[in-house]
Amino acid sequence: MARPTSVRIVEVGPRDGLQNEPGFVPVAAKVALIDALAGAGLKVIESGSFVSPKWVPQMADTAEVLAQIDRREGVRYPVLTPNLKGLELAIASGVEEVAVFAAASEAFSARNINCTIAESLTRFAPVLDLARAQGIAVRGYVSCVLGCPYQGEVPVAKVVEVSQALVAMGCYEVSLGDTIGVGTPDKAKAMARAVADHIGVQRTALHFHDTYGQAIANVLACLDLGIATVDAAVAGLGGCPYAKGASGNLATEDLVYMLDGLGVETGVDLDRLAAAGRAITAALGRSPASKVAQALAAKAG
Amino acid sequence: MARPTSVRIVEVGPRDGLQNEPGFVPVAAKVALIDALAGAGLKVIESGSFVSPKWVPQMADTAEVLAQIDRREGVRYPVLTPNLKGLELAIASGVEEVAVFAAASEAFSARNINCTIAESLTRFAPVLDLARAQGIAVRGYVSCVLGCPYQGEVPVAKVVEVSQALVAMGCYEVSLGDTIGVGTPDKAKAMARAVADHIGVQRTALHFHDTYGQAIANVLACLDLGIATVDAAVAGLGGCPYAKGASGNLATEDLVYMLDGLGVETGVDLDRLAAAGRAITAALGRSPASKVAQALAAKAG
Repeated sequence: MARPTSVRIVEVGPRDGLQNEPGFVPVAAKVALIDALAGAGLKVIESGSFVSPKWVPQMADTAEVLAQIDRREGVRYPVLTPNLKGLELAIASGVEEVAVFAAASEAFSARNINCTIAESLTRFAPVLDLARAQGIAVRGYVSCVLGCPYQGEVPVAKVVEVSQALVAMGCYEVSLGDTIGVGTPDKAKAMARAVADHIGVQRTALHFHDTYGQAIANVLACLDLGIATVDAAVAGLGGCPYAKGASGNLATEDLVYMLDGLGVETGVDLDRLAAAGRAITAALGRSPASKVAQALAAKAG
Repeated sequence: MARPTSVRIVEVGPRDGLQNEPGFVPVAAKVALIDALAGAGLKVIESGSFVSPKWVPQMADTAEVLAQIDRREGVRYPVLTPNLKGLELAIASGVEEVAVFAAASEAFSARNINCTIAESLTRFAPVLDLARAQGIAVRGYVSCVLGCPYQGEVPVAKVVEVSQALVAMGCYEVSLGDTIGVGTPDKAKAMARAVADHIGVQRTALHFHDTYGQAIANVLACLDLGIATVDAAVAGLGGCPYAKGASGNLATEDLVYMLDGLGVETGVDLDRLAAAGRAITAALGRSPASKVAQALAAKAG
């Protein structure tokens, strides 16, 4: 496959990003962020999570956020739903897409969601069934695809197996998460190729964290496979929960800058995107963790 | 050409890096940095500059630094020498390699060194002649190879022309500087290919700044050309003098991490390198601008 001519960016800042920020963000700021991201041209904006507020207090206001955003034609606002209760709340909020998540590492699954990978997939079956019955699209996330904070190496075969299981259960797409950002380009490409060979390149998405500064290079390497869906978080929102003080998500600004330079269409206006990142990081009391955002601010200042 | 099996890293932190840091670094800290970098396995460490202290006060102590470092067998400690006077001082300090610098942008040359590109090359001719007579290797830098802060676009043909001129004058290698870090992978690769086609891939080096977060991806793209010399600065020392607050040099730690992952040999010990970066940034009163350094520190903490 050749490099795609356009890339669909899945903006995960309002969920994956804010969930891992220490600061409290009021509903109004989340709504403003999501609306600004849609205004910048993003077509998929992960907007919250219907999980227990005991586990993820930052997402306890997801229903309010969804009620207040200005839903745009052609934009999806998916949310995470780990179980049937979450899905029912999501349905009540009128979402058109939800996401479920599994790990490619048994050690991570045990420590993080207290069950085996197989058990986690079994638990998702009723969620997928109800979503299908309701005409709601389901995205699957696989974490630890290039390494695990507990077990270290993760076999590519396991990533393929979990990805295939998610597709078999009804996920329209699988997002491959380098949760601790340890991947480098050849390994990322080999892993993504193996998955794409089994589930199809059109079902394969990249979710690479920038903990070791490799995310942009890893995306570049995988674009050559024809993969055309990439996750990123505006302003690099969210740190790394497994290494306090380290970087987490790839900054959407830096991704858009590269894709613009490569002539790959994203439909995203970089200046408006950067403005959205400045606003939310100002609310968090910090600077954007995006080199593009820093450079644009430096030029403007 | 295929990707090289090993890369020679030219560590520019003690010169290009510290020159652009606002903080004052005493001779002892510079000497400790250079010795620590050699201890980490770096074989080329740009150690200072014999320019007028009026223009670059941070490098006024280069002779003292060179006198105090623990020179290792097999390690080169080049310095910048813009003119004959600088070269004479470098010779008196016993250096085995010097560097001269030209721009690929007329606007940058005019604003930065107050002469045309052709005039700047003419001025270097006696430097190259004396260096040759003394058996001293000369490296050439070309700045603004992917864009200029004053004129914007820079034609690839101009980069090729200046690179060829430097080689014709006697430079053994030309380092291609994306001074303002605006390049993206395809453009970087096309520019580097054009230069390598004319002066030879073995004479072509990459010096990519990370102002827009693209440096690591740009290096990855150019490795496929067979280019095997890459400049970087430990801890990402040095900001961008053309955009205050923005990033400058690619962090050596992040480069080594990628090359390690790609199975490309560098001879550099990443932990010792990161320790050198922590020490000098502590002396500067800030944290390393390297994601690898931040991740290693977070894991250790």
